[in-house]
Amino acid sequence: MIKRSAVRAHQQRAADILQRAGILIRPDETIEIAEFGLGEFERSGLALVVYVNTDRYCGKELVLFPRQTCPEHLHPRVGEDPGKMETFRCRWGEVYLYLEGPREGSISGIVPKGSEAHYTVFHEIVLKPGQQHTIPPGTKHWFQAGPDGAVVTEFSSTSRDESDIFTDPRIKRIPEIVED
Amino acid sequence: MIKRSAVRAHQQRAADILQRAGILIRPDETIEIAEFGLGEFERSGLALVVYVNTDRYCGKELVLFPRQTCPEHLHPRVGEDPGKMETFRCRWGEVYLYLEGPREGSISGIVPKGSEAHYTVFHEIVLKPGQQHTIPPGTKHWFQAGPDGAVVTEFSSTSRDESDIFTDPRIKRIPEIVED
Repeated sequence: MIKRSAVRAHQQRAADILQRAGILIRPDETIEIAEFGLGEFERSGLALVVYVNTDRYCGKELVLFPRQTCPEHLHPRVGEDPGKMETFRCRWGEVYLYLEGPREGSISGIVPKGSEAHYTVFHEIVLKPGQQHTIPPGTKHWFQAGPDGAVVTEFSSTSRDESDIFTDPRIKRIPEIVED
Repeated sequence: MIKRSAVRAHQQRAADILQRAGILIRPDETIEIAEFGLGEFERSGLALVVYVNTDRYCGKELVLFPRQTCPEHLHPRVGEDPGKMETFRCRWGEVYLYLEGPREGSISGIVPKGSEAHYTVFHEIVLKPGQQHTIPPGTKHWFQAGPDGAVVTEFSSTSRDESDIFTDPRIKRIPEIVED
């Protein structure tokens, strides 16, 4: 549950980061605030602009505040769809991406305090501007921005956010916004 | 047929436009020079960086020199694939996109001289930074940059360039590069 006024403030901060990254969003486009129902958007959340989502492909811009984390989740098979496959291309800032696979020593990301039980994969990929990584369907992953925040262009198969499976059972992907 | 030295010069000019647009390409990434076999790349051609092309989706950056034209073509059905569907999002500069549909008065694009017979669709969509358009499969289209050139992010279904059907029978999509 998140207040309308808080959504507006987060949208404005995401718009500022997009502007700093040199990415132009039109005034009629919506910056979606994915709050995940945890009540700590600045720590665990994600702002996004969905450019296009068809039954064949999807394109989005993802915006993260400094050290903000998109919690661990996977994209499962949905009917004929083997699960969303996605390519993250970092445009601005820095992203620490964690996937299933061997953990190699210390990591750059910081697991959100109080949520340690819900982070289980630690194979690290660091993405700086111009770097990219493709996440296979059905693979657990989470990601966090570096100290300046981050902007990531996502090229992917069809998005079905409502089907995403989060490791943390407290998470609700579709936000409940309440008027102030 | 295009000389290796000419390819290198075009790649450098495209890299300069990408830099001006604030889009970072890594030194190990290739800027493809699609010359179309017409021997007039600066007028009829397209530079592109393929970020990802899987059997599910594709992501590219398209770069056009000032007034450079990507000639009229369509993406046909290929086996199970109903034809490539693509969303162009203008990031920098200006793009005049032409599709099947009614022509509405004068247009901003200039058909390349000597190739008039091979341009048949004139329904105009002008894309400025932040504006986008989705081109359905099997639809004839061509596009031209405005006076400063353009950078366009393409979100699409799988790319099968070798199957593209160009209106101009002289065109070869896959370039022949000759050493100097």
